[in-house]
Order: sequence, then C-alpha cells, then structure tokens
Amino acid sequence: MRIILDAMGTDHAPRSEVAGAIEALKELDSDVEIVLVGDQETIEAELAGHDQIPERLSVHHAPDRVTPEESPSKVIRRNPESSLVVGLELHRDGAGQAFVSAGSTGAIMATSLFTLRPLPGVDRPSVATILPSAGPPVLLLDAGANVDCKPHHLVQFAHLGNIYAQVMMGRSDPRIALLNIGEEPGKGDELTIETYQLLCTEAGLNFVGNVEGRDIIKDVCDVVVCDGFVGNAILKFYESVAQFIVGLVEAEQKGKASEGLDLDRVFRVLDYAETGGAPLLGVGGVPVICHGESTPKAIRNALKMAVRAVRSDMVKHSAQEVALALGHTSREAS
Amino acid sequence: MRIILDAMGTDHAPRSEVAGAIEALKELDSDVEIVLVGDQETIEAELAGHDQIPERLSVHHAPDRVTPEESPSKVIRRNPESSLVVGLELHRDGAGQAFVSAGSTGAIMATSLFTLRPLPGVDRPSVATILPSAGPPVLLLDAGANVDCKPHHLVQFAHLGNIYAQVMMGRSDPRIALLNIGEEPGKGDELTIETYQLLCTEAGLNFVGNVEGRDIIKDVCDVVVCDGFVGNAILKFYESVAQFIVGLVEAEQKGKASEGLDLDRVFRVLDYAETGGAPLLGVGGVPVICHGESTPKAIRNALKMAVRAVRSDMVKHSAQEVALALGHTSREAS
Repeated sequence: MRIILDAMGTDHAPRSEVAGAIEALKELDSDVEIVLVGDQETIEAELAGHDQIPERLSVHHAPDRVTPEESPSKVIRRNPESSLVVGLELHRDGAGQAFVSAGSTGAIMATSLFTLRPLPGVDRPSVATILPSAGPPVLLLDAGANVDCKPHHLVQFAHLGNIYAQVMMGRSDPRIALLNIGEEPGKGDELTIETYQLLCTEAGLNFVGNVEGRDIIKDVCDVVVCDGFVGNAILKFYESVAQFIVGLVEAEQKGKASEGLDLDRVFRVLDYAETGGAPLLGVGGVPVICHGESTPKAIRNALKMAVRAVRSDMVKHSAQEVALALGHTSREAS
Repeated sequence: MRIILDAMGTDHAPRSEVAGAIEALKELDSDVEIVLVGDQETIEAELAGHDQIPERLSVHHAPDRVTPEESPSKVIRRNPESSLVVGLELHRDGAGQAFVSAGSTGAIMATSLFTLRPLPGVDRPSVATILPSAGPPVLLLDAGANVDCKPHHLVQFAHLGNIYAQVMMGRSDPRIALLNIGEEPGKGDELTIETYQLLCTEAGLNFVGNVEGRDIIKDVCDVVVCDGFVGNAILKFYESVAQFIVGLVEAEQKGKASEGLDLDRVFRVLDYAETGGAPLLGVGGVPVICHGESTPKAIRNALKMAVRAVRSDMVKHSAQEVALALGHTSREAS
C-alpha cells in the first residue's frame, strides 16, 4: 500500500510532514510506503536533518505550492504543478491508495471533487471530524467544507457519517443526530426543521432526533449532522475551549504539590493531534485533511488513519451503501 | 427599585427562584425590592421553608405557568394568566424596572416583543450571552432568539452589543467581530459574506473583522455577532465542554494527593451561574433570561445583573444610540 502525503501543507512545511512520515513508517506495517509530494530540493534538505530515512519513503517532485489566499475552485487551474493537485492526481491514478494533506480544506475539497469525483448519489462530499467525548468519540459532519447547505445535503452527510462510523469506528448501528437549538421536533431554523422531517423517514438510518450543543459530547449519539458553518465553528471552538481550560488548570497547578496527578493523561484525550486528520467523505478516494498547524504526531496519526481507511475498504463500502441509500444519481441531477 | 422575578421558570420552580431572591436581597442595596410572580400558594409554601423572609420580598399571584411545549408566539394569547406574561406586564406597567425569568427563551422573546415592544430601529431583539474567556468576558449575540437572520439583523445585533459592552461591561470602544469560518474577507456563507460588507462601512462601530470559532475566547474582540442558531450551539456546547473537562480532571484527581490545588477556583471561571442570566437587548425594558436549570446562585446573580442594568440606564442609552445608528424606523418597515 502506498500513501501520498502532501509535504507542503502545514504552516511549517515540510518539517512536520517529513518528521510525521518517518515516525509513521516506524509504526506501520512493512507493506506501507509513503510518497512525499512537493519541491524535491526543499524536502531533501529537510530529510538531510534526519538520521535514518526509511527506504519506504520516497519523494515525488511538485514545484508549486497552494497558498491559503488561493480561491479553492481555481487551484486546479492555477496551480496544476502544486503538491496538492499533483498529489491528488497521483492518488486518482492509483500511484497511492490515499492522500493526506494539511492544505486548506476548501482547496482539498474542490480539487478532490474534480480529480476523484463524488460518489454516485453524493452532491457534496463532506469533511468529517472526530470529537473527544464523554463516551466514545463522536463524528461531526460537515465540519467546514459546505456552507449554505440544503436539507438533502444533510441527509447525504448522515449516510456518509453512518457508513464511516460503522466501517472506521466500529459502531454497529450508529445513532445519527441532527444538531439543533432544541430537542423537540419543529425546533430549529428552516434548514433543520426540514432536514428533521427528511431524516425521520429516511431508510437505513438510526435517526435519534435533534441534539443541542450541550449534548454533542454526552454519548447520546455517534454521528452529528450539521451545516458546515456551524460544524466548523463548533470544531474550532472546541479546540480553543480545551486549550483555555487546560491553561487555567495548569496555571493553578503551577508550583503546587500535586503528586501523582497526571494531567497530561487527561489532556491527551482532548488533543486533536491524537486523531490527526479529518476524512473527506463521499468521493472516489481517501483524502484526509490535517490541521494547518499539524505537529509531526498529528501527521503520523493522519497517515495511520489513511492506512486504516484503505485496509477497511472504506470507499467501496461507502459507494455501495450510498448507492443503495441515495440512488445512483444525485438528487440534484435527477 | 423593584425587580419582577418569574417564580415559575426553572425546572424546579419555585425553589431556585425563592432561594435566589432571598440570597440576592441580602447582598443588594436596601432600596431594591423583589416581586415573585407565580402561584401564590406554591410560592408561600416554598417561602415557609425559609427562616428569615426579607420584607423587601413580595408575591404577586399568577395562577398559570408556561410549559416548554407551548409555542412561543402563542403564549401571550393562551397563557395570559401565566407568571411569564403577568410578570412582563407588571414590568411594562412600571410595577418593576426589570424582569428576570428562567422560562423558555422563545416565550420570553415573543412576549417581550409584544409587551415591551422593540426599540425604534430594531427589527429583532437579541439575547446576549457572556462567555468566560482568556481575557475579560466576551459578549456573544444572538445566542438563540433569532434564527434565519438577514445581514441587517446582524448589524443591529452589533449595535446592541456595542452599547451593552460599553454600558454594562465597561469597554470604552468595544471590538466588534463577526463569527465566521475564516478570517479573510469573502470567507463564509451567504449571510456572513454580506454582513461583513455591511459592517465594514457601518458608522459608530469598531468592527475588527471576522473571527473563527477558535478565536472567540482569545481576547481578540469584546463582542461576537452571529446568527442565533450558531450562537446557541456555541453557548450550549461551551457549557458541556467545560463540564466534560472538569469531569476528566476531577476523575484524575480523585484519591490523589494534590495539596493546595484549588480546582474549584478554576472551575468558577467557567460556571454559568456566576453570570446568572442573559439580557434580551433591543426592547423597551430589561428582561433577563436564565437557564432552565438555574441554581439559587444563578438566580441571585441574574437579579444582580438586572439591578445593574437598571442603575446604568441601559435602556435609555440603548434607545438613544440605536436611534442614532439605525434610524427611528426599522429597516424592514422602511
């Protein structure tokens, strides 16, 4: 198996990517190879700083790099030689079975749509994120790839999340919830009121109803569906609240005797780097999107997630179940 | 000064209300009186459990109670004898200078609109909530009263928040930010892209641009403006994340020697009860909305907030500045 890694995505690229790939290869099975895509000279200079470079790590040259300012939809035309576009094309052409990048979510989404194509029945692929929770982690989608969603988009997200929770998170009959501002049917904005109705009658989903913000991480559901605007706000807010509280506790702990109190163990639960990446669901491939500030640990874990997704044949499962649930043509096309 | 307190709003009414009112009167100046509105017999039975009942506490009978299932817009017609409607009418008629209730946000909003009327220039009053932050607390609005907002509603929220932050939070030139999924202009959904443009040219506001979810509590702004759907999700999510992390730390601490580590002090920062209530801004009065699960402490602090709002002449300031900023007629009417 070969994983394509965009080496130029993080804020300090290619440092995190190179170190993360080397770490990952130490832990992954020996049949896994990683291809670093990006400016060959820059990557080789970074590799030179490492003692042992695994044989299973190779470099594929791509001279250009997508800047955060670039309009996502124009990346494929304007930056055809970028690590992002070249990497996704390598994945599409079978040179690798998954693609990992810390580039901009919008650019990865738009370029994946063009190169990997959406699965039949999917109008909008969706970024899914895994949130630490009082119970097992919760899958939240969409986490920022799609705004101004229509009700049928949210239904598609529900199916994509349903499949991911089964195949990748080991949930046998995932509880699907709709993020809303009240629990009762009829609560919400135009989008959620209509989506609720659709989800109630949608076959193949274990829809458990509305959840409010306070219930997302209370182990009342496995998958939370929402528009990408609110999902993105929630995801980013979670990170900052966790950091804020950790900071408060650490400040209080400073200089105090607190024997045996292992807060690192607590805070590890909250560390996004433990998950590493957010899968883009609903396309004919396995793109995994990482945080722009990803550490080597985050890159390593994203690579491991990509390997698991390939091994579990996630795309095949998704295609089959989405086709069954949503029909072979998208609702917009039909 | 007299504050009207809906005695039947919390989940365990009138227990929290009665205890909270008694606590508040111990701390408030001797010119403050509190009127408990609700079923006289029930309230008096609750009062009988307290040793010392302050003279400045009185009861106004209202036999009915609004249930959470009631449609907010129908409360005023269907529940005219409810503590919520009677209380707001007492406030409107000058029997009290503010109104505090832990009833449903929607019902308080709808009934306030009808009884207290929106200030000239305001199309939609807004619930503002105060979030603990790495810096001074941040005002977030709308926090759930308004969904499916239009850009000009968000501009009105910005003005209402601007005034509140000055008068009640002591900020001299409040930094107003728009909650968005990216910092750059042009990012966002239809609502935020258009709102950004309006806020950039709006006079009288210190608009500092977009903030992402991760920046809300990082002391980069004093006021965060958003649609009530996302604001409500953020607010409720914050509560649950704080509880979740507090639980993780407490579980780790259990049975361990951690001398001098005063986590209570840390967690107090995160306790919604410290603020107690969320003001409804933009109406001709001072309604303060409390959590349905409010403890006596939360009720006490909401009453104190109401007193401060009355003393600071918040409504007069709001009316003047809103009239100046938004004109004497609302944009929808004009």
